[in-house]
Amino acid sequence: MQVIVPFFVIFQLSILNSQFSIKMIGVFDSGYGGLTVLKEFVKRLPEYDYCYLGDNARAPYGSRSFETVYRYTLECVQYLFDEGCQLVILACNTASAKALRTIQQRDLPLLDPERRVLGVIRPSAEVVGQYTQSGHAGVLGTVGTVQSLSYPIEIAKINPRIRVFQEACPLWVPLVENNEHDKDGADYFVRRHIDSLLMQSHDIDVIVLACTHYPLLMDKMMKYVPSGIRILSQGGIVAGSLADYLRRHPEMDVRLTKNGRRIFQTTDSPELFDRFASIFWGEEVKSVKAVLTPK
Amino acid sequence: MQVIVPFFVIFQLSILNSQFSIKMIGVFDSGYGGLTVLKEFVKRLPEYDYCYLGDNARAPYGSRSFETVYRYTLECVQYLFDEGCQLVILACNTASAKALRTIQQRDLPLLDPERRVLGVIRPSAEVVGQYTQSGHAGVLGTVGTVQSLSYPIEIAKINPRIRVFQEACPLWVPLVENNEHDKDGADYFVRRHIDSLLMQSHDIDVIVLACTHYPLLMDKMMKYVPSGIRILSQGGIVAGSLADYLRRHPEMDVRLTKNGRRIFQTTDSPELFDRFASIFWGEEVKSVKAVLTPK
Repeated sequence: MQVIVPFFVIFQLSILNSQFSIKMIGVFDSGYGGLTVLKEFVKRLPEYDYCYLGDNARAPYGSRSFETVYRYTLECVQYLFDEGCQLVILACNTASAKALRTIQQRDLPLLDPERRVLGVIRPSAEVVGQYTQSGHAGVLGTVGTVQSLSYPIEIAKINPRIRVFQEACPLWVPLVENNEHDKDGADYFVRRHIDSLLMQSHDIDVIVLACTHYPLLMDKMMKYVPSGIRILSQGGIVAGSLADYLRRHPEMDVRLTKNGRRIFQTTDSPELFDRFASIFWGEEVKSVKAVLTPK
Repeated sequence: MQVIVPFFVIFQLSILNSQFSIKMIGVFDSGYGGLTVLKEFVKRLPEYDYCYLGDNARAPYGSRSFETVYRYTLECVQYLFDEGCQLVILACNTASAKALRTIQQRDLPLLDPERRVLGVIRPSAEVVGQYTQSGHAGVLGTVGTVQSLSYPIEIAKINPRIRVFQEACPLWVPLVENNEHDKDGADYFVRRHIDSLLMQSHDIDVIVLACTHYPLLMDKMMKYVPSGIRILSQGGIVAGSLADYLRRHPEMDVRLTKNGRRIFQTTDSPELFDRFASIFWGEEVKSVKAVLTPK
């Protein structure tokens, strides 16, 4: 007897099979900003398999309450775990500031104690000391990140002598997400917040971009930041920190597959995502829809 | 035997009782913008009981997909029904454009055929003809409202001779929601979109503000719109239409209680809501948290 298996069944089975065997690094952001971090991961650690999740159906997180940001972030981490991610990077400062600690300490032991969730604030805080001579560091972030005081607290743990000055820039994410970051209307908002930050201390010699959207405003910032001040983007810093983490944790490294795959997922329409994601990613993106389980 | 009923039990029972007996008009918006509509309702029809719901945990809706806006709106309508609303006004153009028809035609008969859900587009479309001599009307709205073509379609049903010119203004909602609407940075975006709209036709003599946030930008708009052009805010129009609806539908009017109560609810933090809502409402707001059931 000859059994005829239709081509699409074989094809679907092979997709299922490959999906289950991929053990990925998950990269989560409320929207598109985390793509600037994933880009640096891929540059530095191209062999790993990555799954990006943008919670575009509920972005931006910047001005939402602690409870809401925590709930949304936990749902997304759970989703990435279900997709096969062994390690998830919260490539979103607001989520790192408002949800990471609770997820690490309270939720992870119950979900899967062998998996890991890491943020972007600690790695950024660790390098600030290398770039400041004056000991005065500036931080530009969303309202949520600034109000959480995560940067002053984390930087103080590492180097208590560094003084941290913060400025919230609530319009910067909408400017970037609406592709206005390189147009004339962005200048007013970039200049105002940089001036306001630098007014807090004339000795600031390093500025941390504490939001993964902000690197897209770099050209505008360079116009208003005096040349002696260093501006730190997080992508490269977090990629360096991830490489270091994987070296120090071979037990995690062996759990990860290395086929150089990149999967993009979004909670809103993939068509919409693909159109905007290319601005951040630099080339065409083909995403699929992620359907979360609300908590 | 004497039964002692603690005071708080009596108090809670009386709250429950009063909650169940209020048959309200629900006013829904993705965020704060619908407060500009509720304000006009209260001015014109102060005797009714109103329940406002802002889906601030997921705002703004303007650039989300059809499917997402529909799902969120349906959840909010269902919630307002559960709270005792007999009539719900979608005081959000994006929700009216992307979700109203499906809710009216497919969901309402199953949820409760005696209740009603109305939007803001039809009432606005109905009055445009009264304000244009040239027959050229402009519409300013979110990307979602503009792309849905709801205004051109609705206006054409009423008066097919009117030509409608649209312009999407994606930054206007973030400007208003971040309290930047009366500051200098807003001028660039207000001027650019008005110029772009008026470039489409030199004969436009009426502009519909097809977003409930936009009335807060009125002072800026007046600087860039030539004096012969009328700008229509929706609040007054929709209030007039509601008054008319209640007159024509006494079967709905008798179902509504008239104690002049106003209840404010938000899906994000009430504390955050109260802080910003006062910008739109003009006086202090005290809201409570709404916990939706995801669909």
